[in-house]
Amino acid sequence: MKSLKLTTLVAATAVALSAFSLPALAAEKVYKLKMAETWATNFPIFGDAPRNMVRIAEEMSGGRLKITIDSANKHKAPLGVFDMVRSGQYDLGHSASYYWKGKVPNTVYFTTMPFGMTAPEQYGWFYYGDGMKLMEKVYQPFGLLSFPGGNTGVQMGGWFRKEINSVEDLQGLKMRIPGFAGEVLAKLGAKPTNIPPGELYTALERNTIDALEWVGPSLDLRMGFHKIAPYYYTGWHEPATELQFLVNERTWKKLPDDLREILRVAMKVSAYDMYIQSYHESGVNWATMKSEYPDIQVKTFPQPVLNAMKKANDELLTEEAAKDPLAKEIIDSQAAYMKTARVWSNISDRAYLESVDRLDQ
Amino acid sequence: MKSLKLTTLVAATAVALSAFSLPALAAEKVYKLKMAETWATNFPIFGDAPRNMVRIAEEMSGGRLKITIDSANKHKAPLGVFDMVRSGQYDLGHSASYYWKGKVPNTVYFTTMPFGMTAPEQYGWFYYGDGMKLMEKVYQPFGLLSFPGGNTGVQMGGWFRKEINSVEDLQGLKMRIPGFAGEVLAKLGAKPTNIPPGELYTALERNTIDALEWVGPSLDLRMGFHKIAPYYYTGWHEPATELQFLVNERTWKKLPDDLREILRVAMKVSAYDMYIQSYHESGVNWATMKSEYPDIQVKTFPQPVLNAMKKANDELLTEEAAKDPLAKEIIDSQAAYMKTARVWSNISDRAYLESVDRLDQ
Repeated sequence: MKSLKLTTLVAATAVALSAFSLPALAAEKVYKLKMAETWATNFPIFGDAPRNMVRIAEEMSGGRLKITIDSANKHKAPLGVFDMVRSGQYDLGHSASYYWKGKVPNTVYFTTMPFGMTAPEQYGWFYYGDGMKLMEKVYQPFGLLSFPGGNTGVQMGGWFRKEINSVEDLQGLKMRIPGFAGEVLAKLGAKPTNIPPGELYTALERNTIDALEWVGPSLDLRMGFHKIAPYYYTGWHEPATELQFLVNERTWKKLPDDLREILRVAMKVSAYDMYIQSYHESGVNWATMKSEYPDIQVKTFPQPVLNAMKKANDELLTEEAAKDPLAKEIIDSQAAYMKTARVWSNISDRAYLESVDRLDQ
Repeated sequence: MKSLKLTTLVAATAVALSAFSLPALAAEKVYKLKMAETWATNFPIFGDAPRNMVRIAEEMSGGRLKITIDSANKHKAPLGVFDMVRSGQYDLGHSASYYWKGKVPNTVYFTTMPFGMTAPEQYGWFYYGDGMKLMEKVYQPFGLLSFPGGNTGVQMGGWFRKEINSVEDLQGLKMRIPGFAGEVLAKLGAKPTNIPPGELYTALERNTIDALEWVGPSLDLRMGFHKIAPYYYTGWHEPATELQFLVNERTWKKLPDDLREILRVAMKVSAYDMYIQSYHESGVNWATMKSEYPDIQVKTFPQPVLNAMKKANDELLTEEAAKDPLAKEIIDSQAAYMKTARVWSNISDRAYLESVDRLDQ
């Protein structure tokens, strides 16, 4: 009897409460969501971005948004995140868009492009140019929403057992290199492949591959690649690698407006934070590398090799644009945006860094 | 009678509701806060950052955080924001830390420094180095919290009526230039001053000043300075100008945990967004400038002038560090951080931008 009376009271007061402009009781529901990440358990930086996102979203929602993260160790499908979020097995994912290029070719353009935009240029394209709109065009047919998920900044060109002195040295080279850059190297005779992060060291050690690129000083040193492949090349292929948050559209639609905004902002701020964290760790680890691993030989690809890569890259872009109108729209949008933004990059940050170097010390 | 009964019902059910683990009614209180900004009404970019912050905070809180913004046109004290937030006349402010250097000398270090860090380096110092901790040390005694409020990127060196060909040309030059850079120019014989943004054009037109720096192409063109002062110099003095959100500590303390986190994240994300918006607008406006204002003469200060500025800057930093232990702590922290981060800036973004320029086109 007593509990019945209580129920009546609650129902009656819910109406009364709404008359005082307080949120409806439905808004207090706790949403428990599941996220799959491509990374192994406790993987630094890449794994910090989704963890920061989840913590911020839970705190801002007063506990109404609770997201658990399964790492690759749990779900065993590091490169299956797209499928698992698409099917609804997971509500969210944290990965990289270019991992899906074999499945949906146009996903390749939303991570980074060889000889492409730097991080502030690319964020400009996403948020103030057409980037977000074009990414939606690519992902919407699969019932997925995609958001920037954290930037590494300029990636290093990778670890090589042998020096690359000419384009001929790329012939038959087995290299782990994902994204459009893999296609560029294939055009020049190399054999690119993608391998999940957790298997990279073993693949290099057992000669499954001759070379690999992973990220840069922020993450490479702890992987130990320098013990097997001492030539460390500067970057050309991933000037601003942006990771990705994926959200199942059905999950997104069932969230109330405030939680949707909390999720959107939590993803955005943790992506920006990862860019800054990567910048920070790169500086710190570069200093460590110089003092503790003096045998690492930092190299830049010879100019003829870079020119051949650029030529192959341009030809591939022309081919892709001819095949698919949406690919053309994305490629043209990126090229136009970069042209305008690059003038500013050169006169601002680059000119400033150069001028400081010319000063009397 | 009826309303009395309703009150009783609400009170009774508030207890019942809490037994069902729903948020206490107190958490549903609407917090109405007031913010003062240094900028004039509808001032672009600088004014967009606080407006974005307010909109995001309101949406994420489901309307529980409502912040109204008074522009300089309303409160009439563009350079009085520090005092008005300190006194509690306003709960929040949006301004720039270096505007308070006459009042609290150590506030000058948290906006940007001549020959100092670039935007990603400085965000690294704030969030992954000691920046936030040191800023708290400076603001806490005044009952204020200070947060990054949006970055302009590298600022241009300013608009001059006459060319600067030697250090002697700086003698007696009346220039609007705030922050530490003003002190550098004073040491070289110039007469620096700060003038609120809304009065800049008139001051230049009426010869109150001979030159001024404002921001860069993102904001300068619409101010019309080029009509009076056609020499536009590249930057040395503000490589990464970070605006500022100020929060009165009493306001901060009365907010519940979730709203405090919403406010913190809304400020952080809108600051990052302003950096990207500035980058975007700078590229777009630079292109406009080149096509529509061909008479603007873009110049770089001669190397002897830059060397003299750097020498004066270093001497001033040494003087400030000798005067105050906290100033020394901040100066040393920035120098050490920049040294580590700059190696990475040079090998990543700068080397990449340079290498792309060397490619066959």
